[in-house]
Amino acid sequence: MIHPQQSSGMPTAKYLPFQDQIEVHLPDRTWPDQVMSKAPRWCAVDLRDGNQALIDPMDSERKMRMFKLLVKMGYKEIEVGFPSASQTDFDFCRELIDGGHIPDDVTIQVLTQCRDHLVERTFDAIRGSKQAIVHFYNSTSVLQRRVVFDLPQEGIIDIALQGARLCRKLEETVPETDVYYEYSPESYTGTELEFAVRVCNEVIAVIDPTPDHKMIINLPATVEMATPNVYADSIEWMVRHLDRRESVVVSLHPHNDRGEGVAAAELGYLAGADRIEGCLFGNGERTGNVDLVTLGMNLYSQGIDPQVDFSDMAEIRRTVEYCNQLPVHERHPWGGDLVYTAFSGSHQDAIKKGLDDMERRGKAAGKTIDELDWGVPYLPIDPHDIGRSYEAVVRVNSQSGKGGVSYLLKAEHGLDLPRRLQVEFSGVVQKRTDAEGGELTAAEIWQMFSDEYLHADVPEERWGRFTPVRSTVSGAEDGVDVIEATVLDHGEEVELFGRGNGPIAAFIEALSTVGVDIRVLDYAEHALSAGGDARAAAYVECAVGERVLWGVGLHESIVKASLRAVMSAVNRAERDAAVVVHA
Amino acid sequence: MIHPQQSSGMPTAKYLPFQDQIEVHLPDRTWPDQVMSKAPRWCAVDLRDGNQALIDPMDSERKMRMFKLLVKMGYKEIEVGFPSASQTDFDFCRELIDGGHIPDDVTIQVLTQCRDHLVERTFDAIRGSKQAIVHFYNSTSVLQRRVVFDLPQEGIIDIALQGARLCRKLEETVPETDVYYEYSPESYTGTELEFAVRVCNEVIAVIDPTPDHKMIINLPATVEMATPNVYADSIEWMVRHLDRRESVVVSLHPHNDRGEGVAAAELGYLAGADRIEGCLFGNGERTGNVDLVTLGMNLYSQGIDPQVDFSDMAEIRRTVEYCNQLPVHERHPWGGDLVYTAFSGSHQDAIKKGLDDMERRGKAAGKTIDELDWGVPYLPIDPHDIGRSYEAVVRVNSQSGKGGVSYLLKAEHGLDLPRRLQVEFSGVVQKRTDAEGGELTAAEIWQMFSDEYLHADVPEERWGRFTPVRSTVSGAEDGVDVIEATVLDHGEEVELFGRGNGPIAAFIEALSTVGVDIRVLDYAEHALSAGGDARAAAYVECAVGERVLWGVGLHESIVKASLRAVMSAVNRAERDAAVVVHA
Repeated sequence: MIHPQQSSGMPTAKYLPFQDQIEVHLPDRTWPDQVMSKAPRWCAVDLRDGNQALIDPMDSERKMRMFKLLVKMGYKEIEVGFPSASQTDFDFCRELIDGGHIPDDVTIQVLTQCRDHLVERTFDAIRGSKQAIVHFYNSTSVLQRRVVFDLPQEGIIDIALQGARLCRKLEETVPETDVYYEYSPESYTGTELEFAVRVCNEVIAVIDPTPDHKMIINLPATVEMATPNVYADSIEWMVRHLDRRESVVVSLHPHNDRGEGVAAAELGYLAGADRIEGCLFGNGERTGNVDLVTLGMNLYSQGIDPQVDFSDMAEIRRTVEYCNQLPVHERHPWGGDLVYTAFSGSHQDAIKKGLDDMERRGKAAGKTIDELDWGVPYLPIDPHDIGRSYEAVVRVNSQSGKGGVSYLLKAEHGLDLPRRLQVEFSGVVQKRTDAEGGELTAAEIWQMFSDEYLHADVPEERWGRFTPVRSTVSGAEDGVDVIEATVLDHGEEVELFGRGNGPIAAFIEALSTVGVDIRVLDYAEHALSAGGDARAAAYVECAVGERVLWGVGLHESIVKASLRAVMSAVNRAERDAAVVVHA
Repeated sequence: MIHPQQSSGMPTAKYLPFQDQIEVHLPDRTWPDQVMSKAPRWCAVDLRDGNQALIDPMDSERKMRMFKLLVKMGYKEIEVGFPSASQTDFDFCRELIDGGHIPDDVTIQVLTQCRDHLVERTFDAIRGSKQAIVHFYNSTSVLQRRVVFDLPQEGIIDIALQGARLCRKLEETVPETDVYYEYSPESYTGTELEFAVRVCNEVIAVIDPTPDHKMIINLPATVEMATPNVYADSIEWMVRHLDRRESVVVSLHPHNDRGEGVAAAELGYLAGADRIEGCLFGNGERTGNVDLVTLGMNLYSQGIDPQVDFSDMAEIRRTVEYCNQLPVHERHPWGGDLVYTAFSGSHQDAIKKGLDDMERRGKAAGKTIDELDWGVPYLPIDPHDIGRSYEAVVRVNSQSGKGGVSYLLKAEHGLDLPRRLQVEFSGVVQKRTDAEGGELTAAEIWQMFSDEYLHADVPEERWGRFTPVRSTVSGAEDGVDVIEATVLDHGEEVELFGRGNGPIAAFIEALSTVGVDIRVLDYAEHALSAGGDARAAAYVECAVGERVLWGVGLHESIVKASLRAVMSAVNRAERDAAVVVHA
C-alpha cells in the first residue's frame, strides 16, 4: 500500500518545535522505571485557577459550595483565590476565616504576584487563619522575559527575591498564622532549566525553609508545550538540582493544551515530585488545569488509596457543574455519562461473563465482590464504587431511517432526554424488542415511552400506584415551599402535605407520609420546543430503595411537570418491586 | 506542614496494580530520547469504533457526511464499519463502493471477528472496491481468555490463524480488489507481551506480507490500563520482537480510560509505531478513542505538517457534532469554545504584548505573521490558522451578586446563549463599562443586550440598516424553501425574494440581492422557558466580509426569530464598518 497522505497546506513553518526552544537533556533519567505506590499531596485550585477561567465566575455562595465539597472529599490544601487582584476573592477569604469555615487540618492557599502592594494585601487576606500558604510567582520564560518584561535574567530574579523578602518581613503582621510559602516560576515549561533552578534556589535561600517547615516549589506547565515525557525529564532534572531538597516540596501544576495534562502529572510524579495542583474535572484556563478526578481515580483503579473520597461521583459532578456552569462531557474519564456503558454485543457478552465469574468466585470463597480482585472486561473499575451502575445499551433501528430513539423523541416530540435517561430508556426498548423482535416505527417508540414514563397522564392507559389529581405549592416566608397535593393512591383519593426546600423536596416529604422512601439524584427540565407546544418537560433521577431510575412529567406548569416526574419514577419502582415479589 | 490526608474509605484493595497483572520490562528503552519529525499514517475509525459507541448511531446520511468530511480533511485510511455484524454497516459499505464515493487514493477498512461466516460476509462487503483493508481480530488478554473463552493460549492462536487462513483463501473471490490485512490482538494491554508477539508472528507467517505489500499489526489499548510510558515500553518491546519488521506496519489504537490516550499515542509513536487509529474529537467506546484532532494539532504546533487539514475547525466540529450527536467540550484541546480565550488581566496583557511584538517584528522584516516564528504567551498557536480568533474576556460584576452576565440572561430572561456568543457579548459589556466604569445592574445588562442584538425589535430604539416588516416562507416541492420578505432597508420598504435549503439560506440569498454578503457559521435555537413566554430565541453566527459575529432574534415563530437573528448580525456588521469608514 502506498502512503498517499499529502501536505495539509497549513502554515506549518511558523512553529518552532519545542526542542529548538528549550533544551531538556536527561539521558540517564530514572522515572520510567518507577511505579506509583501512594497518593501525592493534592492541592485543589478550583477557586482560583479554575474560577478565573469561567465566563461567569463564582459568586460567594458558589465559592462556598465548592469549598465545602473540596473539604468533604478530603482535600487538605485549597487555593481559595487571588485576593490582592480581586475584591470578591478577598472578601471570600475573609468570610472563610472570620466565619470559621476552615477545618483545623485544612490549609488555605492564596496567590499573589511579587509586587509590594499585592503582597501586603495578601497578608491582610489571610490574617487570623490558623495556617496559610502564600503562593507568590513571577513569569520566567524566555518569551515573557523578552516581550512582556524586557528584562535580563537578573531583573527577573530580583522580582522573585523582592517578593520573597517582603513575604518574610510581613510574617510578623500575622502572628497568629503559621505561614508557609509556595513559589512558582510561572511559564516554567518555556524557561531554560538552568535559569529555572537558579531562580528557585535563590528564592529558597531567602525563604530559608527547614525539614520541619518546608516550602513548596511549584513547576507549572502554564502552557503545555511538549510531550509529557519531556515534562517528566525536566522535573527529574529539577529535583536533582534543587537546593535543600529535604526542605522543599516539589509541586506540579499541569495545564492541558495538548490534552496530556493527566500524563504530565503522573509522569512528573514518577520523576520525583511530591504534590499536584489541579481542578475537579479539569476546569481552568483555556483547556483547563489537570483533572483531579481523573488523577485520583487512576490511582484508585491501581489499588492505591487516593486519600480523596470519590464514592458519590454524582454529587461531586453536580456541584462542580453548578459552581462552574460548565458541563462534564459524556466521555469524561470516570465521571462522564457514557463511560460505564457498553454498546457492542461482544463487549456486553464479555462483561456479562466477567460479572458471572466474579459472582461464582465470590460464592466459592464465601466473599463479597469487594473482597475479590476485580476483573471484568471493559470495566476498569466496579461502577458501584462511585455510585454508578454498568449499563448495556442496545440500539434500536427504527423504520424512519432517522437513527435512534433519542433522536426521534427530540425531533418528533421535542423531548431532550438527559443522557442517562437515554441509556435507561434504550434498555426499556430493548426488553420489548427482545420479546417482540423486529424494527420499530416512530409511533411504537413513542407509545413505549409514553407507557413507561407518562402512564399517569393518559387516562385510558393509567397504571401505577399514584395518579395526580391536583396540587398547590406555596412559598412560606422562610423560603421553604409547602405542598398540598391530592393524588390517587391505588385508586383512592389521598391528601398529602409536605414542606421542603423547593416543590420537589416538599413533595418527597409528602410522599414519605405514605411510606415512599425516595431520594432525588438529578433533575433537568426544559420547555417543549416542538410545534408550539406550551408544555414543559421535567426529568428526575431518583434512588428508590436500592434502585436508581428516572421519571418523566409533562405539563403546562413546570412545577406540576416535576411532581409528575417524581410520581413516574415511584410508580416504575413499585411496579418492578411488585414483579420481583410475585416472581 | 503536616501531611494530613486521610484514607478515602473506598474499597481500594480490590484492584490489582497493572504491574502485578502484566509484566512490561524494558530498562534499555530508547523512545524517551526520540522526537517526532513527521506525521504517522492516520486511520480514522469514526464510522466504526466511534459509531458503535453512540446512543443514536449514524444513519446512512450521517455516515456519508462523516466519510466526506474525513476524505476532505485528508485521511487516506478510513474504517467504515463492521459490515458482518451490522446490516446498516454492510449497506453503507456497498453504497460507498457501488456509488463510486471512494477516491482512488483512499482505502476503506472493515472490521471482522475471526469467525468463518463473518469473514465471508466481510469479503461480500468489500467486493468491487479498488483496495481495502480487512481488519480481523480476536481477544487475547489473560482476563478474556479465562472468563470469556475458557481457552488455553493455543486455542486463542487457532482462532486468529483460522481467520487469517480464511482471509487469504477468500481473496480470490474479490479479484478486482487489492486486499490488505490488519490484525489486532484485541485487549492487547491486558495480554502478556510474549503471548501477544507470538500470536502476531504466527498471523504474519500466514498472511505472508512483503515490503511492497505490507500488513498492519495493530496493538490496541482496548482498555487503557497503565501510564502511557508503560504502553510505549510495550510498543518498543513489540517492535523489537515482531518478525519481518520491514513488511509490517505497526499501528496504535489507544482508548482513553485514564485520560491519557493522546499521550499513549504520542509516546507509542516515539517507540517505533508507524500508524495511529482514532476518532475526531475522541469519540468512541466509554471514554472514547484517542482524538485525531488533538494528535494532528499537537504535531502542527510543533511545526510538523499533520497531513490533515484543520484550517476550518468550525466546520469539522459542526459536522462531528451533527454526526455523533455529542457536543465538543468547551475546554477540548484546539477545538473547544474557550481554548483561545484569556480571562485574567495578566494573561491579556502578556498576549497583547506578544501580538504587538509579532507586528513589530513583521514590519521590521517586511514579513507577514505567517512568515515569522510564532511567539505569543498563552497562545500556543495562532488561532487564525484554524479560523478562530483570540478573545480577551473581562468579566463584569453585577450588583445582583448572582454572578455574571450569561447567568443573568438565562435566569431572568430565559436566554441560553451559545458559549461563543457569551464571549462576544462579554466584550460588548466590557467596552461599555470601560467607558462608563462601575458595576452593572441586571437591568443595565439587559438593556445593553437588547440594544446590541435586539435593536430591530424595539421600535423606539431601532437602529441598523434592516428592520423586519413581514415575511412568508413556503416549501417548494423539491425541498427548497422560498422566502418573500418585506423589510425596511435604511427606512425604505423593500421586497426581497430568495430560495435556499431552509429559511435562513433563502433569506441570505434574498439579502444578497441588496448587496449583503454573509455566510452562516453556526446556529442555535431554543424555546424561552422563563415565565410562560411563548417565544423562541435564535442565535446565528455569521461571517460578514472579514468579520465573524453573532445575531440574535426573538419571536413567537422560530422561523421569524432566525430571520431576525440574521438581520441583527448584518446590522451589527454594517454599523461597525460605518464606524471604521468615519474614523
